[in-house]
Amino acid sequence: MGPGPSNAHPRALAAMSLPLLGHMHPPFLKIMDEVQEHLRYLFQTDSKYVLATSGSGHSAMEACVANLVEPGDKVIVCNNGIWGSRVCDMAARFGGDVVNMEKAHGQVYSFEEIKTAIETHKPAMFFCAQGESSTGAKQDLTGIGEVCRENGTLFLVDTVCSLGGIPFFVDDWKVDAVYSGGQKVISAPPGPSPLMFGERAMEKLHGRATEVATYNADLKMIGDYWGWYDKRFYHHTALVSNMYAFREALNITCEEGLDNLWARHRAAHEQLWDGLNSMGLESFIDDDASRLETVNTIKVPEGVDVNALIANAMDKYGIEISGGLGPTVGKIWRVGIMGYNCTPKNIEAVLTAFRDGLQQQGKL
Amino acid sequence: MGPGPSNAHPRALAAMSLPLLGHMHPPFLKIMDEVQEHLRYLFQTDSKYVLATSGSGHSAMEACVANLVEPGDKVIVCNNGIWGSRVCDMAARFGGDVVNMEKAHGQVYSFEEIKTAIETHKPAMFFCAQGESSTGAKQDLTGIGEVCRENGTLFLVDTVCSLGGIPFFVDDWKVDAVYSGGQKVISAPPGPSPLMFGERAMEKLHGRATEVATYNADLKMIGDYWGWYDKRFYHHTALVSNMYAFREALNITCEEGLDNLWARHRAAHEQLWDGLNSMGLESFIDDDASRLETVNTIKVPEGVDVNALIANAMDKYGIEISGGLGPTVGKIWRVGIMGYNCTPKNIEAVLTAFRDGLQQQGKL
Repeated sequence: MGPGPSNAHPRALAAMSLPLLGHMHPPFLKIMDEVQEHLRYLFQTDSKYVLATSGSGHSAMEACVANLVEPGDKVIVCNNGIWGSRVCDMAARFGGDVVNMEKAHGQVYSFEEIKTAIETHKPAMFFCAQGESSTGAKQDLTGIGEVCRENGTLFLVDTVCSLGGIPFFVDDWKVDAVYSGGQKVISAPPGPSPLMFGERAMEKLHGRATEVATYNADLKMIGDYWGWYDKRFYHHTALVSNMYAFREALNITCEEGLDNLWARHRAAHEQLWDGLNSMGLESFIDDDASRLETVNTIKVPEGVDVNALIANAMDKYGIEISGGLGPTVGKIWRVGIMGYNCTPKNIEAVLTAFRDGLQQQGKL
Repeated sequence: MGPGPSNAHPRALAAMSLPLLGHMHPPFLKIMDEVQEHLRYLFQTDSKYVLATSGSGHSAMEACVANLVEPGDKVIVCNNGIWGSRVCDMAARFGGDVVNMEKAHGQVYSFEEIKTAIETHKPAMFFCAQGESSTGAKQDLTGIGEVCRENGTLFLVDTVCSLGGIPFFVDDWKVDAVYSGGQKVISAPPGPSPLMFGERAMEKLHGRATEVATYNADLKMIGDYWGWYDKRFYHHTALVSNMYAFREALNITCEEGLDNLWARHRAAHEQLWDGLNSMGLESFIDDDASRLETVNTIKVPEGVDVNALIANAMDKYGIEISGGLGPTVGKIWRVGIMGYNCTPKNIEAVLTAFRDGLQQQGKL
């Protein structure tokens, strides 16, 4: 019940043990095709250009940044948590001229702030995370896509901990590129990570004046392996077993359907906060509308030992509750409720662990 | 029985289905420690700086090249197959001044050629592949390490398809950096790939004037996750399930021991060639001493349909026999005999498939 990896679906875990297929064999390519169909549904896009990178979320993040940022390109990064800070790091490594729109961890950006920044800098790319799993903040994305199009800017979104758990619409929101993770709401073991490029992102990719800085993240070649150009090029040995599990987890996820997924995550989030509030605990995120359903951040009350509560939850209940990350270490707990883990029973268990942890410290 | 991925050990496959641990949890870090101990044995090194990248062989290759090559560094690449050509590509992307020592696929390099090249160019790095799985050529590494030290050159070796199957000694041979694959002789599913940096490589890494070009391959940070600097830094979400399987496959491999592994692979190689020669088939590699035991390349005789034989082997016997790669397409077959797949029974099955395939075409 931390911010991820989530427990994997048992059916996804079982798929991990199946015998290996070759990474270029037709039956394996068919699995990749199925994965792409599922990803189009989850992203709510008709774009042909979807795939899953052979690595956890960072590999998909780097693939997006490496391919969309050329040396000298101006890049605006909403940096209100670890993921914004990682994108600043990566964009700078690839020669980007980074406009670091830094905010305190836990804050979000208003539409006006974003619009002004884009109109002022007219950057090649604008980045924000829909869900910042390091802070529990949810960024409203409404209208940003339009502003980006008006200013010749590509719109890149991180949905690692949010995709499938809360509404997200690539085509309707005019998102040009997006990446996510397989081990969060989708509940596969860590491995393949979803990624989508729209037409404008593909134009950038094919119009680059410079080669992509890394072979492993070169999406022209990886896309060629995934059939983006209607053939199959050997780029690297795919994570064969993980692809089985990912396909299986996507089957389960897509069968449930986005409306049901969103409702289930919203209900679990409300159940969690009803319980936490009743113990006097408060959200780290001030504004109700900016509280992420999938990763919840809880202020550590004055005088409470954050790690003692975490250790007790693990030792006594076998439940992972996480601390903060970076500047929020010691200030917050983080509870993930994603995919397979998102059940009323699990929320009850988390609440029990919190109640017991606070009681042990004489705080309840 | 292709050049990889090999079939995985059933115990390694079973380990893939175990429930997930968090990538920063102490029990998982202990698994990583065990993996490192095993890798030191397989590499025959006392170096502290071993780890497994979160990806197949290309990710380990890129990690080595990205960290050891700075813009402007001269790099000699023995390019007699696909892997040399990939290292040329990567080194150029990272700004290296590449001396492409190109040779026809299937050829190897004499010690004198290598010595002269290193003494002439005094490069920052010299690269060769011990086993070129695209051609079946085995490069003799004797003495190269000493020449590199005398000329201020780092010695990087690709052992993706050779490690564990044929003798290799990091410390004795003065290899500065090496990478391998997990899905070849080690017979884990594709995923973690071994990598080792010696003291001289670490000096280069820490003495760099420029930042490593990619976040995902930045070994200062990945090493920090693996305890190289005696703490544990969160860099990315590791491939948790794959690490279970990799540890299990390493347990099996190291329990058998290097001497036994080398003898088993040598015996299978001889069994294969006794059979192939008796059908009138010949090695693509002219020189006996340069024939790689783990990946064997067979000349396609005049008038034989290479793909019909491959299709028959798969359809009738369920056996993968591969064709060439790049310039050798249509000219050779490739048979991998690595790790779990390296058994007398499997060699017999391969020989049966060849015999039947030739007979069907009226060539035997």
